Amino acid sequence: MVFTIGLLGLGTVGTGTAEIILDSEGRNPLLQEIKIKQVGVNNLEKPRSVTLDPGVLTTDLESIVNDPEIEIVVELLGGLEPARSLILTAIRNGKHIVTANKAVIARYGDEIYTAANQAGVYVLLEAAVAGGIPVIKPLKQSLGVNRITSVIGIINGTTNYILTKMSTEGLDFADVLAEAQELGYAEADPTADVDGGDAADKISILAAIAFGERVKREEISCEGIRQISATDISYAEDLGFVVKLLAIAKGGMGQSLQIRVHPTLVSQDHPLANVNGVNNAVLVEGDPLGQVMLSGPGAGKGATASAVVSDIVNVAGILKSNSQGKDLDPHLSCNHDNYAQLMPLAEITTRFYTRFLCNDVPGVIGYLGTCFGKHDVSLESIVQIGFQEDLAEIVVVTHDVKEGDFRQALAEIENLDAIASIPSIIRVL
Amino acid sequence: MVFTIGLLGLGTVGTGTAEIILDSEGRNPLLQEIKIKQVGVNNLEKPRSVTLDPGVLTTDLESIVNDPEIEIVVELLGGLEPARSLILTAIRNGKHIVTANKAVIARYGDEIYTAANQAGVYVLLEAAVAGGIPVIKPLKQSLGVNRITSVIGIINGTTNYILTKMSTEGLDFADVLAEAQELGYAEADPTADVDGGDAADKISILAAIAFGERVKREEISCEGIRQISATDISYAEDLGFVVKLLAIAKGGMGQSLQIRVHPTLVSQDHPLANVNGVNNAVLVEGDPLGQVMLSGPGAGKGATASAVVSDIVNVAGILKSNSQGKDLDPHLSCNHDNYAQLMPLAEITTRFYTRFLCNDVPGVIGYLGTCFGKHDVSLESIVQIGFQEDLAEIVVVTHDVKEGDFRQALAEIENLDAIASIPSIIRVL
Repeated sequence: MVFTIGLLGLGTVGTGTAEIILDSEGRNPLLQEIKIKQVGVNNLEKPRSVTLDPGVLTTDLESIVNDPEIEIVVELLGGLEPARSLILTAIRNGKHIVTANKAVIARYGDEIYTAANQAGVYVLLEAAVAGGIPVIKPLKQSLGVNRITSVIGIINGTTNYILTKMSTEGLDFADVLAEAQELGYAEADPTADVDGGDAADKISILAAIAFGERVKREEISCEGIRQISATDISYAEDLGFVVKLLAIAKGGMGQSLQIRVHPTLVSQDHPLANVNGVNNAVLVEGDPLGQVMLSGPGAGKGATASAVVSDIVNVAGILKSNSQGKDLDPHLSCNHDNYAQLMPLAEITTRFYTRFLCNDVPGVIGYLGTCFGKHDVSLESIVQIGFQEDLAEIVVVTHDVKEGDFRQALAEIENLDAIASIPSIIRVL
Repeated sequence: MVFTIGLLGLGTVGTGTAEIILDSEGRNPLLQEIKIKQVGVNNLEKPRSVTLDPGVLTTDLESIVNDPEIEIVVELLGGLEPARSLILTAIRNGKHIVTANKAVIARYGDEIYTAANQAGVYVLLEAAVAGGIPVIKPLKQSLGVNRITSVIGIINGTTNYILTKMSTEGLDFADVLAEAQELGYAEADPTADVDGGDAADKISILAAIAFGERVKREEISCEGIRQISATDISYAEDLGFVVKLLAIAKGGMGQSLQIRVHPTLVSQDHPLANVNGVNNAVLVEGDPLGQVMLSGPGAGKGATASAVVSDIVNVAGILKSNSQGKDLDPHLSCNHDNYAQLMPLAEITTRFYTRFLCNDVPGVIGYLGTCFGKHDVSLESIVQIGFQEDLAEIVVVTHDVKEGDFRQALAEIENLDAIASIPSIIRVL
């Protein structure tokens, strides 16, 4: 059989995808049955590192999603538009979709999956989260028989590279960001990565699959790594932690779902603590399974293209076994349409690391202890850990506390004259 | 829809499987459509921790594989017979198979998959390798679009528990084995685990999937951990290594496949080095993907049952979407029937750690260097590392060498008077 596909986009991932398909020896044999009919690009004249047959390139993206011969549309444009409109047109034309576009799925997943279910087509998105690491399918197909209690991921390679580099070389955020931009690990506009938006897109997708409810992307609490200082990384290390940007989804069995992205202190002996550089990892916990961790390259041409192509051959395998296209296999389709009720941040339970700059150490330590206690915030440690000029630095690590209680205590503490400032508040896993 | 299944076996994993299916709230919704019609056991009177409807238990296992209502037979008996015969009868009767039985698949996979392809049924076996960690499906469905170059696993929990305990507590093999047996982490007859046979069963299954060729189980070179001493673990640590029982399959792109199970020195900063206790991990390397690691609980009731049930709902999902049962989806069936040509051990390339006991240190070091050099064995280090009574201990670590060359050098070295004995030869990853 021949399965005819159209690619939208021939950037890094698009090129990697075409390269795998056009060089199929030694790979999944189904690849030999995949034919790239059209590739939609902006510029026909741009030099390309992959050689396509004449006439395959086109700037008419609409023609691809309307081509009756094309069975699978592979959307690798990124961004919201025209990706969303092209995906929806392709779906209405009965085409299966493979996409690496977390932004569009995180925001328009509802519209896209509803259309796909009506049209009886699949929308696969393994490449949208954690690059080449199989995450979406294992979560949906294998781990979902468990009652999932948490999905915790390091799912943004740029920020993990920056934090790793800050940690190993004692550098500040701005310096490492500049270097990462030079090396191509960070975009010229790094906002989506360093402010946590990209990780929030991805965890909203993982949470929807793990907990079987649609998620409103804009409700996800999201904090980036711009405010993380070399000082905090160094103090965290002294206390036995590393700093990671974690995307966390917790819920299950009648509990409100909580989804959040924020820098987090992770104990050095935790499996996620050793995931360094541009690597990604997703830790899934469920009952009766326990903890499973999936880790590897979270970005890059080859890794992401590997995930895209695995989805293409997945659809091809289904078409091969079931060319009638009856009902969708619930393991590959979206079977929920209710929205999750997200827990407000004030109600979550977590530990906190907080650094205070102050000028009256004995007095402050007593006051901190009393004030936190009054608000039901139980402390693990208060340590006077260093100095910044003539101000003493005090680091407080709490036990698990309700975030609302902690914030109330902090609001009260801020008013104390002896507190010069509170430079850092970082949650602890 | 209702999907009717029959279980063969109600031991630890069978009980875990029934528990998940009978308590489906908060899990994959397809579980609500699974009905356990019969469970085959040896003894109807034995107390069970799971409550089944009256009449579900039967000692007549044949009746389950011949029951026309049962669509999926779940084989959890373990061992070769009657598992093999029951699986084959069920297949001939058009039933899909879910099994956790690595021993029967490793030895009779050819016969079983040939029969399954003829009958148009699936034989799924996620639980056969690495317990609750999704490994089989990711390898087959997601990673297989890459040119796989290696699959390296810690896939026997018992030996990993023993080696971890020997390492952290400085104990000898026999003591830790006895303790593991008391705790239920090792069988009364530990042969299959500690001599590497269980890991060899599992790597033969992974290799067949990763490299697309059937594997003759009896051709796999297999060495266990009985001879690993606390001394070697301690010396390895001094040199920056930990000792792990690795199952290794390497090949791809015209190279002969090599499959082997043996204790291995693993660099302390390698991802597999931190997989401790009864945990398992599988590291897959391919082009263009890079390295992906899947890790988690490799055994135990809940973890293994999670994998069994994921396969059951996988078949149910397919039946739901395609009740005609046309062709098999190549992502879930076996599509190769040629046998791999395995590379003889003498031809593999690896590093070696070797410990010598000798009584003439300066002379021996010169002789070792010369003799290894003569046989093209390039050395990384020769260190006189300790003493055993009046004998000096010399540890040699080689670069990557051909095993045949190394063995020839060793045969010559053994004849030297100054060499009292060669207590340890361990490959290095």
